[in-house]
Amino acid sequence: CKISGAVGTYAHIDPRIESYVADKMGLTPETHTTQIIPRDRHAVFFTTLAIIAGSVENLATEIRHLQRSEVAEVAEAFSGKQKGSSAMPHKRNPILSENLTGLARLIRSHVMPGLENITLWHERDISHSSVERIIAPDATIGLDFALHRLAGVVAGLEVNREAMQQNLNKLGGLIHSQSLLLALTARGVSRQQAYTLVQTNAKKAWDGKQDFLALVKSDATISTLLSPAEIDALCDTAHHFRHIDTIFARVFGEATSKGKAK
Amino acid sequence: CKISGAVGTYAHIDPRIESYVADKMGLTPETHTTQIIPRDRHAVFFTTLAIIAGSVENLATEIRHLQRSEVAEVAEAFSGKQKGSSAMPHKRNPILSENLTGLARLIRSHVMPGLENITLWHERDISHSSVERIIAPDATIGLDFALHRLAGVVAGLEVNREAMQQNLNKLGGLIHSQSLLLALTARGVSRQQAYTLVQTNAKKAWDGKQDFLALVKSDATISTLLSPAEIDALCDTAHHFRHIDTIFARVFGEATSKGKAK
Amino acid sequence: CKISGAVGTYAHIDPRIESYVADKMGLTPETHTTQIIPRDRHAVFFTTLAIIAGSVENLATEIRHLQRSEVAEVAEAFSGKQKGSSAMPHKRNPILSENLTGLARLIRSHVMPGLENITLWHERDISHSSVERIIAPDATIGLDFALHRLAGVVAGLEVNREAMQQNLNKLGGLIHSQSLLLALTARGVSRQQAYTLVQTNAKKAWDGKQDFLALVKSDATISTLLSPAEIDALCDTAHHFRHIDTIFARVFGEATSKGKAK
Amino acid sequence: CKISGAVGTYAHIDPRIESYVADKMGLTPETHTTQIIPRDRHAVFFTTLAIIAGSVENLATEIRHLQRSEVAEVAEAFSGKQKGSSAMPHKRNPILSENLTGLARLIRSHVMPGLENITLWHERDISHSSVERIIAPDATIGLDFALHRLAGVVAGLEVNREAMQQNLNKLGGLIHSQSLLLALTARGVSRQQAYTLVQTNAKKAWDGKQDFLALVKSDATISTLLSPAEIDALCDTAHHFRHIDTIFARVFGEATSKGKAK
Repeated sequence: CKISGAVGTYAHIDPRIESYVADKMGLTPETHTTQIIPRDRHAVFFTTLAIIAGSVENLATEIRHLQRSEVAEVAEAFSGKQKGSSAMPHKRNPILSENLTGLARLIRSHVMPGLENITLWHERDISHSSVERIIAPDATIGLDFALHRLAGVVAGLEVNREAMQQNLNKLGGLIHSQSLLLALTARGVSRQQAYTLVQTNAKKAWDGKQDFLALVKSDATISTLLSPAEIDALCDTAHHFRHIDTIFARVFGEATSKGKAK
Repeated sequence: CKISGAVGTYAHIDPRIESYVADKMGLTPETHTTQIIPRDRHAVFFTTLAIIAGSVENLATEIRHLQRSEVAEVAEAFSGKQKGSSAMPHKRNPILSENLTGLARLIRSHVMPGLENITLWHERDISHSSVERIIAPDATIGLDFALHRLAGVVAGLEVNREAMQQNLNKLGGLIHSQSLLLALTARGVSRQQAYTLVQTNAKKAWDGKQDFLALVKSDATISTLLSPAEIDALCDTAHHFRHIDTIFARVFGEATSKGKAK
Repeated sequence: CKISGAVGTYAHIDPRIESYVADKMGLTPETHTTQIIPRDRHAVFFTTLAIIAGSVENLATEIRHLQRSEVAEVAEAFSGKQKGSSAMPHKRNPILSENLTGLARLIRSHVMPGLENITLWHERDISHSSVERIIAPDATIGLDFALHRLAGVVAGLEVNREAMQQNLNKLGGLIHSQSLLLALTARGVSRQQAYTLVQTNAKKAWDGKQDFLALVKSDATISTLLSPAEIDALCDTAHHFRHIDTIFARVFGEATSKGKAK
Repeated sequence: CKISGAVGTYAHIDPRIESYVADKMGLTPETHTTQIIPRDRHAVFFTTLAIIAGSVENLATEIRHLQRSEVAEVAEAFSGKQKGSSAMPHKRNPILSENLTGLARLIRSHVMPGLENITLWHERDISHSSVERIIAPDATIGLDFALHRLAGVVAGLEVNREAMQQNLNKLGGLIHSQSLLLALTARGVSRQQAYTLVQTNAKKAWDGKQDFLALVKSDATISTLLSPAEIDALCDTAHHFRHIDTIFARVFGEATSKGKAK
């Protein structure tokens, strides 16, 4: 709230009037003004919208990756009536997530004019005005639309658990190489040597499309340190889910987390 | 602080270890991570630096305006030994403030890569790394330098009170037109009519380089509403300083304000 | 022009058809495409608009400076019916030029999304589409409007020759210090010494608001090298107009220049 | 080239001297200058570098996609001595291409300060100078490094033809749906009906992981219009390579294209 006169000096109005009005309207008087509220305030607002848009893009990009044909772990909802791409009827593209990526670029584009608006000549000039008339509605409406679209995409997302498991298995247990590395060092092997043992088998598995766990179990050195049963136990994906409630509680709060966990 | 493993799941480390280490180091555990701390955190940092740089530019621009030959109300300190511009020895340019304007552009330029870094593929990719190795030192060292330079400019600023008063007087009291406008409306004149009365004399004063207050005092209508003494009282610049302590206290805190006021 | 099929391979259409259609429509076939024309083409377009907008802002900033009260060398046209600023009726602000400054910020803001659009996944993704639907009309219509507004401002600009001359004279000939410097070196004085001679008098003139040329003519050293008449000749502003036709001819072409010169 | 004096008026130097020097040095005299060459020239340069960087990022992003585990069609060269990722020894990440993505962000970041430099006060101010001292070397050296790195990545790229073929086959011929669509319309089926025929089978193939071509050949309607042999002919990927020489000749010139084609 700012009621401080044409140059911000309260020359013709007492600051108490500003306080009174601000209080009635649920606003806070600005600490220091010129003819206007300094535009660094607005810059904070526009950059914050852009950062949120960046997180929208981050999620949209994740979905785009997971929906690509070779991964196919998720898919945006696709109504029975909807057509595929015009030239390639079979293709189901993550068009909403691609659209969200573009919208993020647009909302990000408001940051530079928002920052350039901070510098005004003397008590103010009018140069920021045309900028704000465009970017204020474009950024707020644009981000509101993007957030609703993202919520819709997430709500309707088809998740293919089977494909996820297949992709995890694709490398024959190679994703568990770190667990193995740590287990070997716990058995007294130096990190350097453990790394070499794991990488040698990892390379063999990768290049030859062989099963990594089978290779590891039959490795002359590793087999003296870890039994096949121990190796299987190490490679249980359940390790990754042990602390999921803790993470959910941190992000969404304790109550929500409990609800989610049920 | 983030000690949550290669994909942020605490698969091989308990979250309590992270909490313990964070506590010892005076840090806060990040609520949710992947391989890395999400880059929206860093984006907030870089945009904040850019907004501060925008305020530096705002002040530097004010000084550049006030130092131009036709205004000459302030001047950056100029040592006896220092040369003027190479081609025009008499010119004393606000070179530090111009430099600060350029530095603000540089610090502002780190915002877009900072925002583009938010979107990383899956748990992370390394694309943000080369960016941060450049912009993190450039932005922080750059802004630190700019703030020290600005503090030096302000500390050494030569203020020409006489020129300020002359510039205020230059328009023959025209700067007080708003006070007059408000006083006329307080005497029962409609805002529309008061505006016309003031603007007619303002235009005459401006176009003919005449003294505005003299014109106003001799205006047939105005003179029936306000006496010359009342008009002089209205046009005292002291009105603009009445609440200066209130503003200082808001910005710098009560104690500082008191000190400044002495 | 691009008629090369869904992945740019001309799999179902011969390149000669593209050439034929392009020729009929006055277009050029794109050298290499995917599903779409590569977006670096569009980036060139948007950056070009932004550079033109930068030049618009450069001119608008010049006008804003020249119109400030203390300079008052030009003024945007101000119709008799138009009001001054709402609070200060006497003020005639360069509102159109300030508006152009803001518009330049807007057009400049389309550059980053235009550049981010270059990177598309595989043959194309749709992320650029929402961006272009907004920035293409905003940038083109915005710049068109800005150019028309600028042309109008320049056409209606009130130029105050008298104020220009007064501002030039304000420093008592100080603006001619470079001519004097060069003349002294032409008389055999070292550049270092000439600089000292000129700066000493320049400083005296500036600080004491004295007439620079009078000081110089009575300087013990300078007066042995240059006569008062020679000094007056040096300080003729006509030197600056000698080559104006050459410059106009370079910018506008020979014919236009001749016309302008009349 | 610019030798036009301190305000660009050739007040103390004839334009012919500028022409003479420019000619000797293989430069072109600038059409119009102030104290300096107008900064829109420099803005063109910096935006051009950013557009090239955008194309670098476009290629780098293509490689990053093609190298992801689930696609695995290309891989950046990986020396025998090189380690994989520190936590996951088996992972071979496209780290150079990820780095190029980051470098593109850096080079793109120089565009805004380059554009903001266009507006200088009056004949010039010094604000652009600090900016250019940083961005000129950073942008040119950065892009030079990026181009060399990209050339190295492309030169050493391991291409997995087998994986490419497997990925193409993965969808049981679904990638040829467009050829089929066009062939059906050539046999007199309306585009709408052809689309429905193809999409029905495409959906069945996609959802049921069935062979698309087998489904199509046994489709009651399609089989009356196209024989199995005709369908096989349609689905030959050779269609996509027919005009590759034409495209290469357009991009690299006729001679190079011939060389490449051998």
